Amino acid sequence: MLYAQVHLTLPAWVHESVDTSRVYAGDESKVELAVFLSRTNIESGSGGPFGAAVFGPDDRIIAVGVNRVLPHSCSVAHAETMAYMLAQQRTQRPRLNEDAVGTHIGPITLATSSQPCCQCYGATVWAGIDRLLIGARSEDVETLTEFDEGPLPADWVGELERRGVAVVSDVCREQARDVLRAYGESGGARY
Amino acid sequence: MLYAQVHLTLPAWVHESVDTSRVYAGDESKVELAVFLSRTNIESGSGGPFGAAVFGPDDRIIAVGVNRVLPHSCSVAHAETMAYMLAQQRTQRPRLNEDAVGTHIGPITLATSSQPCCQCYGATVWAGIDRLLIGARSEDVETLTEFDEGPLPADWVGELERRGVAVVSDVCREQARDVLRAYGESGGARY
Repeated sequence: MLYAQVHLTLPAWVHESVDTSRVYAGDESKVELAVFLSRTNIESGSGGPFGAAVFGPDDRIIAVGVNRVLPHSCSVAHAETMAYMLAQQRTQRPRLNEDAVGTHIGPITLATSSQPCCQCYGATVWAGIDRLLIGARSEDVETLTEFDEGPLPADWVGELERRGVAVVSDVCREQARDVLRAYGESGGARY
Repeated sequence: MLYAQVHLTLPAWVHESVDTSRVYAGDESKVELAVFLSRTNIESGSGGPFGAAVFGPDDRIIAVGVNRVLPHSCSVAHAETMAYMLAQQRTQRPRLNEDAVGTHIGPITLATSSQPCCQCYGATVWAGIDRLLIGARSEDVETLTEFDEGPLPADWVGELERRGVAVVSDVCREQARDVLRAYGESGGARY
C-alpha cells in the first residue's frame, strides 16, 4: 500500500491572532508580522521559531506560514514553504506573480523572520515573488539556536536578483533575534 | 479568512503501477523505478517529467513521488519533495534516518530521475537520507527541456557528503534522458 496524501496545516491560533483585513504598508510592518508569527509559534508549542507571510500588491496578506516540522513529521514544512504552498493553493497560481497566461501580477512579497535556509532559498527561486524581506541573519540563527541553515550559493543574493527577486535584509533584525534567543535559551529542538 | 490547509496527492495510477512488495536491490533498479515514475507521469498527464522514490534499509519502497506542480498549483510539489514528505509522514520521522531518540536508521536512499533542482537539493539536506542516486544530469534537464535547475552551491556534492549523504550520479542516465527528451519534444510546460 502506497502512502499517497500529504496533509499540512497551520495551528488554530493563526485564525484568532492574524488580522487579515489590515493593510501592511511598508517593509517593517510585514516583517513584524513574520516575527510575531515566529514568537507565537514557540509560545504555543506549535513548531520552531520561524514565521513568514506572503503579501499581494495591495499590501494585504495572501497567506502566512510557520515552522511545522515536528508537529507534522515533515522536514519540508518550514515557515516559508508553508506560506508559499498556502498562497499558491489559495490563488491557484503555481508562480505567485504570474497569471494563467504568464502576465506579471505584482509585486508579490515574502517577509520572513529569518534568512531562508538552503531549502527555502531554493523554494524562493520557484515561488514567484518579487521582493524578499528578511529579519534575522543566518549567523543569528546559527549563533542563537542549534539550527543549521545549510549550504547556499556563494552569491545567493545576486542569484535571486538576477531572477527578478529584490532582497532586503536586516528588517526588524533585533526583534527577530529576540525570538531566536528565547528559543535557544529554552533548549528548543533544532528542526 | 486565512487559508490554513495544504493538501497534496499522488496520481491514482501509482496504486496500480508500483509494486510495493518488491525488493529493489542495487542502485539501478531504484533509479529505474524513478525513471518509470517520471515517464508514467507525463504519459498520464499528471505532472512534469520527474519521479523519485525513498527506499529503506531492506531495499523496499517507503514512498514514491512525482512532480505535481501544475495539478496542485504548488511550486514545492516536485518529485523529491513529494517523496520526502510522504516517507516522513508515513514513518512519522521528520529525519528519515533518525528515530525519536536520534538513533540512526539506515541506509535510507533517495533515487531520482534527474539531479535535484535548487529547492530539492536543499530539501535533501534536511530529509535524513544516506544515499542519493541520480539519473539524468542538470545539463540534460536544461538541454532537453525548458526547465531551469536553479543556483546550487559550487561544491554541491561535497556539501552533501560532508553531511553524510553519499551521491551517485549517471545511474540509468540514458533512460532518464529519453523521458526528458520526449517531454521536451512534446512542448511540455516548464514547471
